[in-house]
Amino acid sequence: MPVIQITMSRGRSVQQKRELVEVLTKETARIMKTQEEKVRILIYEVSKENWGNAGVLGTDM
Amino acid sequence: MPVIQITMSRGRSVQQKRELVEVLTKETARIMKTQEEKVRILIYEVSKENWGNAGVLGTDM
Amino acid sequence: MPVIQITMSRGRSVQQKRELVEVLTKETARIMKTQEEKVRILIYEVSKENWGNAGVLGTDM
Amino acid sequence: MPVIQITMSRGRSVQQKRELVEVLTKETARIMKTQEEKVRILIYEVSKENWGNAGVLGTDM
Amino acid sequence: MPVIQITMSRGRSVQQKRELVEVLTKETARIMKTQEEKVRILIYEVSKENWGNAGVLGTDM
Amino acid sequence: MPVIQITMSRGRSVQQKRELVEVLTKETARIMKTQEEKVRILIYEVSKENWGNAGVLGTDM
Repeated sequence: MPVIQITMSRGRSVQQKRELVEVLTKETARIMKTQEEKVRILIYEVSKENWGNAGVLGTDM
Repeated sequence: MPVIQITMSRGRSVQQKRELVEVLTKETARIMKTQEEKVRILIYEVSKENWGNAGVLGTDM
Repeated sequence: MPVIQITMSRGRSVQQKRELVEVLTKETARIMKTQEEKVRILIYEVSKENWGNAGVLGTDM
Repeated sequence: MPVIQITMSRGRSVQQKRELVEVLTKETARIMKTQEEKVRILIYEVSKENWGNAGVLGTDM
Repeated sequence: MPVIQITMSRGRSVQQKRELVEVLTKETARIMKTQEEKVRILIYEVSKENWGNAGVLGTDM
Repeated sequence: MPVIQITMSRGRSVQQKRELVEVLTKETARIMKTQEEKVRILIYEVSKENWGNAGVLGTDM
């Protein structure tokens, strides 16, 4: 049943996302002793003006 | 107070979204015995390269 | 692929949740022209001290 | 550790987002007695056809 | 329309949550030039074994 | 900046969560070419009556 939601900066390649989905699914299923078929992953890309850390906007870092 | 967040593939029409908001609000309020005024719905559209199932990226299915 | 996440006040019965999952899955699949098998629903229950509306905490309403 | 996720209508300026990140981080850290360095904020912008209130789509209000 | 979701460590008092909801609503409405009535806040409390930073579980810090 | 949110069935051990946080952080940082220090993970545990698949509640499977 695990649903994994990843929020990250915009700009990764399709190949990076493909590997991310493949590896995170495999490792999560292995550690949680569940089937890979049950793992779903959602990626939310945000631009630098849409996140902040320690009070500072991403575009200002 | 219910907040419903729907993550789905990009590409549905405005008419589909309108019906989705209308029907899901009505049914949720009815089942949970609350007022429709209290139901809020948020839709997050993701492209095929931003979700995966069973370790496979949406673009590769 | 749709993932539906519902945040609602704690305290609904299992029967209400069962109907919610059944009805919302059926209606979402119908409107979005996808299969019911692809719809996943997650429910997050929060107590009254964990949500606010218009600046007022749920316990104070 | 607080992670604050804001879903809002598309169209705010970078300056508004900058102030939002700055102020919400400062106030959250103060109230929760934690360090500003630990507060992370994520902003999800949705267009008017992607949210609904009381069963009505944002574009129809 | 803004929906603010806060994920934080379990253990804050009702009074802290009350102030958090009050202040974050007021500041968000002010900065985004919207009405306080439209701001909704949801708090998700997680225990120390349910979050990690830099690869380390909260209970191990 | 990546924030990873995992929603899963209640009942995993602390040791499983520790390994999940460790491995997912390491793999995500490696694939996305970012520092492990920037990866934050949040785990939301839901009981079987709080999720559904294909219209069926978890408790009925």
